[in-house]
This record gives sequence, structure tokens and C-alpha cells, in this order.
Amino acid sequence: MDFELTILGSASATPVLGRHPTAQVLTAGPAQYLLDCGEGTQWRLLENRVRHQRLRAIFISHLHGDHVFGLFGLLGTMHLAGRTEPLQLIGPPGLDELLTAQFRCSTTRLDFDLNYTRVDTAAHAVVYEDAQLRAWSLPLEHRIPCAGYLFEEQPRRANLLKERLPAGLTPSQLAQLAQGNDLLAEEGGVGVRHADVAGPVPTPRRYAFCSDTRHVPGLAALVRGADLLYHEATFLDESRERAAQTFHSTARQAAELAQAAGVARLLIGHFSSRYKALEPLLLEARAVFEPTDLAAEGLSISL
Amino acid sequence: MDFELTILGSASATPVLGRHPTAQVLTAGPAQYLLDCGEGTQWRLLENRVRHQRLRAIFISHLHGDHVFGLFGLLGTMHLAGRTEPLQLIGPPGLDELLTAQFRCSTTRLDFDLNYTRVDTAAHAVVYEDAQLRAWSLPLEHRIPCAGYLFEEQPRRANLLKERLPAGLTPSQLAQLAQGNDLLAEEGGVGVRHADVAGPVPTPRRYAFCSDTRHVPGLAALVRGADLLYHEATFLDESRERAAQTFHSTARQAAELAQAAGVARLLIGHFSSRYKALEPLLLEARAVFEPTDLAAEGLSISL
Repeated sequence: MDFELTILGSASATPVLGRHPTAQVLTAGPAQYLLDCGEGTQWRLLENRVRHQRLRAIFISHLHGDHVFGLFGLLGTMHLAGRTEPLQLIGPPGLDELLTAQFRCSTTRLDFDLNYTRVDTAAHAVVYEDAQLRAWSLPLEHRIPCAGYLFEEQPRRANLLKERLPAGLTPSQLAQLAQGNDLLAEEGGVGVRHADVAGPVPTPRRYAFCSDTRHVPGLAALVRGADLLYHEATFLDESRERAAQTFHSTARQAAELAQAAGVARLLIGHFSSRYKALEPLLLEARAVFEPTDLAAEGLSISL
Repeated sequence: MDFELTILGSASATPVLGRHPTAQVLTAGPAQYLLDCGEGTQWRLLENRVRHQRLRAIFISHLHGDHVFGLFGLLGTMHLAGRTEPLQLIGPPGLDELLTAQFRCSTTRLDFDLNYTRVDTAAHAVVYEDAQLRAWSLPLEHRIPCAGYLFEEQPRRANLLKERLPAGLTPSQLAQLAQGNDLLAEEGGVGVRHADVAGPVPTPRRYAFCSDTRHVPGLAALVRGADLLYHEATFLDESRERAAQTFHSTARQAAELAQAAGVARLLIGHFSSRYKALEPLLLEARAVFEPTDLAAEGLSISL
């Protein structure tokens, strides 16, 4: 199944032309999930041809505007578009209060169920699960309560290996095998063992989303071995003090975390508007952790 | 002095690529005013090179998201940019509650004074005044309390007519005359009368902003003779019933109001996303009131 991340916004709070505040779409098979929802996200969904109808859940890391101010408009648009499918909303305490105030003032009544999971931003715990994936909160350290999220796909079945399949199997027999069953022989006993014709069980893919946080070395243990880590890198390391003051990270710190965690790839983002060119941030991170890329609007990474 | 309107957004609630929700900038001499603030307005300000630092007041017509969801982000950006100048906010009841909830949840404390004028949306009354202009509320009829705004520049002095000025006046004497004073003759009595060398007093220019409303014929009396009327035209007249149900207007109704009010020009906007091409809306309005134009992102009209 597809397990793919698409970047809708790479910027931090101050608006810059051509960059947008944090929002990402995670695709897992037939389902899609929105991670943070900065102002304008519904236009980014249009630009990237992501149908909001397919969104099953929205994860919000914290209540700073550049991560949540697009949510009210998006929910309104879902309502106007006639959504009836329930939507799961996962986020920090206070998100319900914000939404309630919005809905009351605009006398909005959604025609779909909006189910809210209040995240304990200090805990590492399962906060969401469906047939495609399971999500854990990641305790981040920011100026206000803030959670990252770790997504792990549900266990997949091993793929059948063509070269090991006996000739002459019917489609129905192949389907049985593909679902992990053994085929019985007509004279009794086992004819074809699933274990004999299947490859190894694929390791579930994992994506860790760390939106806004100061450098927290302990995070490495929680995202160890992830296929992809997104970590904010608001500043260059020359502004390490400014980063600490504002509870943000530098590109070097993001790379150090990726290295310590032994992840496969790192994506950095949430760039300060002070950086017109982003290359220095990339080079700084790559000097520590080579498989690093810049988050950029429209970038898709298939895991 | 400049008296100019710039359109930042022409769309209604459902997002369309290339169109944006309602926001306009009115320039009156050195001051600028924002009228409504749909999601993404701060990027529209960047695109149109309007510096938010120059905004003196923000007028909000009502609390539907496509008119207000850009406000929280814009205020945050003003704060991050170090604004200390007070900002006047004029809007319907509930706007203060929305802002308070936002600020509390994101622990935002603005470094500038945000002064709020609560508008009685059922009244036609002065809601704002400064050295450049005076603004009245216009009672609109929408699904929730909604006010339009009528802006009138402050009285201007008559311009001096070069051909009537005696020769040999000093700069200081000219300045006296330009400020409306008479010049005394050296031997006593009046030497040059301001009234004799000045043209007629210009009529104050007026702009009427009617954001979201069903057809309200009584509005004509309140905007009579305005230099420019912006009136929503969400639908074509063939959807007149749908317009009435949703408390919106048709292009034909907007034009009828403009004609009844005897305004100089009409601008229609707030187009439904169902209309990919806007020409039919324009033609329908022009059939009733010829000096009509379409609101379009980036359009500026100097009055």
C-alpha cells in the first residue's frame, strides 16, 4: 500500500510569498491524514489535488496560529461540501474550546461528527488507530503544550514469491495464499504452506512528525529507526541561542537527533522568514546527517 | 489625496484556486483600512505590496469564516513584526469573544493596543472617524448579524485656481490662501479673498461596502450617490430563490440597487464557486446598470 508524505507548507509564523505555514498530508493506502493546518491549507489541498473528502483524521501539534489557523476554514468547507463521514481530530487541550467559540459565533452546525481526542502533550501514548495505521504522541518542548506524532502502518502480510509458487494454482487458491492461509492437499494434509511461498513479513513503515520543539535529545529513543523523520529547523546553528529562547531547533540539532535516532531519512522545515535562501540550512544538516532534504511545498516522499 | 480601493479577494466561502475570500484595502491619503479579512489575507497583502504596518483600522462585516478567518493570523504577524501603533477593530458582537479565545489558547499577548468598536448591525450610525474619513455602519440582512460600511472622506479644502491668483505672492501668502484664509492688504482690509481665487469645494468621495446580504431595497437610501458601491452578487438571477434562501443577492439585484441609489459605479463580487466564468454575472448586472465591473484579485479603483 502507498505510504507517502506530501508537504503543503514549510514556513514558520511570519508569512513569506511562496512559502506557507505548516501542513502535511500522510497517505496510507486508501486513507489520508492531515498533520497540522496552517492558514490557507485548504488552498494547498486544492493545489496538490488532495481531496478533503478523503481525509480521515486531522492531527494538530499545538495551538500557535501557523499550525492551526487553517482548520476552521477547512472544517467549514467540508461542511459546505456536504460531508457526512465522521472526522477524527487529534490535538492538544484547548482545541475544542477554540472550535466551540468559532462555531458559536458563526452559528455553524457541522453535518458530520467531529470526534476529538485530547492529547496529553507530555506523554508518549497511542492517540489514534485504524485499519491503516497507529499513531503515538511524541512529547515536544515548545512555548505552549505541543505534541509530535509518530505514525506506524499496521502489519502487512508477506508478499507471495512468484518463483516459489507451484504451477496451476487457481485464482481462488492464490487469494487464499495471499491472505496468509495454507492450501490443503486434496488427499488431506497441507498442499502448499504459506510460509514456503511467501517472502519475509515487511517491517511496518514509520513516519515521525516533530513540528515545533527545542532540541530534545530524549526524542531519539522514541523515533528510533523511523523511515522518515520530519524535524523543525527554524534557524541555523549560528542562532542557537535564539532557537533556545524561542523553543525552536537549528538545522544542526535536527540532524544530530536524526543521527542519534538512526532514522533512514530526515526532512527539515519550519524555516524562519529571515532565510531567503534555504541551502545553508540544508548544508548544515547534511554535514551531520547526509540523507537530509528540505521540506518544500509540493514535495512528496514515498516510503 | 488618494482615495483608492484595492480588491484582495472576490470569492465566497468555498475555496477556488486563484480566487480568495473577501478582503479589500481602502487607501485614504496616508492611511489604509482593511475591509474584511478572509483566510490568507496576509499573503494577499504581501502580493499587493500593502504594508500591514500602515493599516490603521480593520472593519469586519460579520463572523462567517470567509470574512474573518485571516484576522487571527494577521494580528499575530503584526505582533511578531513589532507593531506598537494602536489598531482599531470595528466589527459585530462576538468578534471580541473569538479573539479572546484565540489569544488565550495560543498564550498570545499583543504588544499593541487593539481597540474594539462593537457595531450594532441593525443601525446606520457612525462607527469610526479619523482625520481622513468617517465610517457609518450599513444594516445588511444575512444569516447572522452583518454590517456593511459606508466611508466618506473628510471635507477637503477648495483648490486655488492659478489663473485667478495675483502675481507676486510669496510662498507664505500662497500657503495662507491654500489653507482657506484671506490675505490682508497692507493698508488694511482684505487684499485677496480666498473665495475669489479658489474653485468649488470638492464633494467628499464616498465608498459603500456591502459584503454579504440579501437584496435590501432600503439600502439605496443609505448609499445614495456614492462614488462606488461594492455589492455582493453571489448568484445569477436564475438562482434568485437560492440567493433568498441563503441571504445572498444576485448580480441583477446588485445592479438594481446601484441604479436605485444613483451611485456612479458598481463593483460586484463574492462569486459562488459554481461559476467558473464570471462574464455572465457581469453581463447580467450591466444590462441593468452599465457602469458595473467585476471585483478581481489585485484590481485597484481610484475614486
